[in-house]
Amino acid sequence: MKAHVYVTLKRTVLDAQGQTVADALRRMDYRGVTDVRQGKYFLLTLADDIEPTVANAEVDRIAREVLTNPVIEEYSFKLES
Amino acid sequence: MKAHVYVTLKRTVLDAQGQTVADALRRMDYRGVTDVRQGKYFLLTLADDIEPTVANAEVDRIAREVLTNPVIEEYSFKLES
Repeated sequence: MKAHVYVTLKRTVLDAQGQTVADALRRMDYRGVTDVRQGKYFLLTLADDIEPTVANAEVDRIAREVLTNPVIEEYSFKLES
Repeated sequence: MKAHVYVTLKRTVLDAQGQTVADALRRMDYRGVTDVRQGKYFLLTLADDIEPTVANAEVDRIAREVLTNPVIEEYSFKLES
């Protein structure tokens, strides 16, 4: 089983990396993009014998306690069997 | 319209960040996780009037030419209206 975890800066936090990418795209004449936010992506490989409810709880705890700085970041994740 | 772009190191490239996270999780007694790969996540906001086929082509080009280092990284993306 795999877990995809996405960690992004909260909407209220200035995303300098994302703005730099957005500015670069504008300079390169990519007109279709109006905004960019950059975040982190984690692909977790879980033990094969783990139950989905246990996996869900464990990934949620890992995302919240290890992968995310709750002051400035938020996360979402999805499981894939 | 939004585009979610995921950039990860190729399978053959050593992912030191991911291994560090995996080691940390092991030390913290998270037994369910066997491997971690870390990558980047970009959320692009696209102009409202852009057509899906045009958006698809533009995001693919941006991901390939701007967001990804083709020597060591690969990408995937999905559009969401």
